[in-house]
Amino acid sequence: MAQNFQIVLDSRPQGEAQASNFKIVNCDTPSLQDGQVLVRHHFLSLDPYMRGRMNDNKSYAQPQAIGEVMIGGTVGEVVESRHPKFKAGDTVVGMGGWQNYSVVDGNAMGALRKVNTTQVPMSHYLGAVGMPGVTAWYGLVKIIAPKAGETLTVSAASGAVGSAFGALAKARGCRVVGIAGGKEKCDYVVKELGFDECIDYKEHADYISLSKALKLACPKGIDGHFENVGGMVLDAVMLRSNAFSRIAVCGMIAGYNGAPLPMHTPSLILINRMKIEGFIVSEHMEVWPEALQELGAMVGGGQLRPRESVAMGLAAAPEAFLGLLKGKNFGKQLVKLI
Amino acid sequence: MAQNFQIVLDSRPQGEAQASNFKIVNCDTPSLQDGQVLVRHHFLSLDPYMRGRMNDNKSYAQPQAIGEVMIGGTVGEVVESRHPKFKAGDTVVGMGGWQNYSVVDGNAMGALRKVNTTQVPMSHYLGAVGMPGVTAWYGLVKIIAPKAGETLTVSAASGAVGSAFGALAKARGCRVVGIAGGKEKCDYVVKELGFDECIDYKEHADYISLSKALKLACPKGIDGHFENVGGMVLDAVMLRSNAFSRIAVCGMIAGYNGAPLPMHTPSLILINRMKIEGFIVSEHMEVWPEALQELGAMVGGGQLRPRESVAMGLAAAPEAFLGLLKGKNFGKQLVKLI
Repeated sequence: MAQNFQIVLDSRPQGEAQASNFKIVNCDTPSLQDGQVLVRHHFLSLDPYMRGRMNDNKSYAQPQAIGEVMIGGTVGEVVESRHPKFKAGDTVVGMGGWQNYSVVDGNAMGALRKVNTTQVPMSHYLGAVGMPGVTAWYGLVKIIAPKAGETLTVSAASGAVGSAFGALAKARGCRVVGIAGGKEKCDYVVKELGFDECIDYKEHADYISLSKALKLACPKGIDGHFENVGGMVLDAVMLRSNAFSRIAVCGMIAGYNGAPLPMHTPSLILINRMKIEGFIVSEHMEVWPEALQELGAMVGGGQLRPRESVAMGLAAAPEAFLGLLKGKNFGKQLVKLI
Repeated sequence: MAQNFQIVLDSRPQGEAQASNFKIVNCDTPSLQDGQVLVRHHFLSLDPYMRGRMNDNKSYAQPQAIGEVMIGGTVGEVVESRHPKFKAGDTVVGMGGWQNYSVVDGNAMGALRKVNTTQVPMSHYLGAVGMPGVTAWYGLVKIIAPKAGETLTVSAASGAVGSAFGALAKARGCRVVGIAGGKEKCDYVVKELGFDECIDYKEHADYISLSKALKLACPKGIDGHFENVGGMVLDAVMLRSNAFSRIAVCGMIAGYNGAPLPMHTPSLILINRMKIEGFIVSEHMEVWPEALQELGAMVGGGQLRPRESVAMGLAAAPEAFLGLLKGKNFGKQLVKLI
């Protein structure tokens, strides 16, 4: 038994999410039943998809119930176990939610995954060697399926998904151009992540202007694009897309607040015989082992050095999350809980 | 040598295409060189893609040059041949253009295809057993790839592509719902083509209203859609699309006049993990034999009885074409030249 703090959804956002949509509560963890495991979380992952769960309308997942602990990926340490597969001291990744501790059914498929921290720091299992990394891998390998020499672009390039995408694409011999917000992020994308170029979308008032910058950065056009954002970036990329180009759609952050977000020129789908495909990585568990192996090797070998923004303590999670939605984070957004 | 009338592009449209964009000219056919074939056209096919060629801007094909004979599919009879593969009296399909005669290089890959008119009337080689039929087949089989029991929709359902799509989809055990303009076309789609239902888009002021009608006609949602039109129909279909649904994009007729044609809710691509893919059937010649065999058997066996709108004489082509762009045709639009 341990004292546990939790952040629950207190109300649904009207338009932009606010700190007042969240409430912190505390309780004691229950005593374990047979088969259960008590995990103390070291890190909580904050991700854009959580914003979608706060709404009541149809999305790819059930809405988060009011009063329920916010959903979220966690990495931590087993402190007590009544399951033979897990023992105190194991490092485990799971979906523990916005709280300090979780009680997990050790028999539930994929609920807890033991990881090794000798080569890869614990926190990276929520980023490059976790869901964001596998997300980049799936979109690149299974949807874009690039050939060496092709030009690829990715929005939110400095983030957890974007940085993994860049490393994976460079390893396949592609030219990779990032799109990010602000000079500091763009410098990081080129100098530290090794992208060929990076465009600061904040320097562009509209998608026409952004597409002119893309034309300079992608003189042979764009063969594949990984979309984390939607809106102006997607419109601009489409204007520079080559025949038979592929767009993997993983995020539409600009639309989460309910603002209308049209695609300006869908006729390009026909004109350029494009393929645009949305996906959610948790529906493709069959690729995780292969993807995690490549990503773990890249992080362990230093070819991928992901950056993290770390907020301290559970109470800092709502503000860090709202900042993430506005692009204030720099790299993978985490909350350190211990 | 024969007297030949030709319709050439005289000027590019500003907005809507007009009869004045075309000009009729006449000349004698040249004497044949070795390897050439002189074909007298019986039927000319009119198709929406021709509108795109009249513009000067980037599309999937080169713009039509001013003063050049308008591009178009034709079926006709060889009247003179200096190529060993062809002899006078052969029925041949080709891209002869808007004219009475064409001189064709018999050695050019795919320029002329001999066809058999014992089972299939000559004109159907421009429709159900030609490019429109193969277009339906490719979108259905290669992009939508339906399972029996799935619900599929198609816009311009009474047209050459739509009617073939319906027959091919019913043969695969799918529920097929058409979208067409006007009660007469909708009745035809259900009663003669055998679709399960057909919605008259003209009864709906916007895509929200149309999507409500789709909800009634597709109580299990939409698993696959074949898009011939774009705009309001595509927006409405997307609102009813199921998880993992597929949209084959073959036409965006509403955008050809240069009017802005946004997609209202591209976020559905992610929410429903959709795949949207544009294609041009002439880039997939590898499927033609298999597709034509199935389509020929369906027409020969009476499972597919395509309807035709036939304009009489070359001079009627521009008006028939402008009518086609406004949906005035009923079934495959042809011009009879003999």
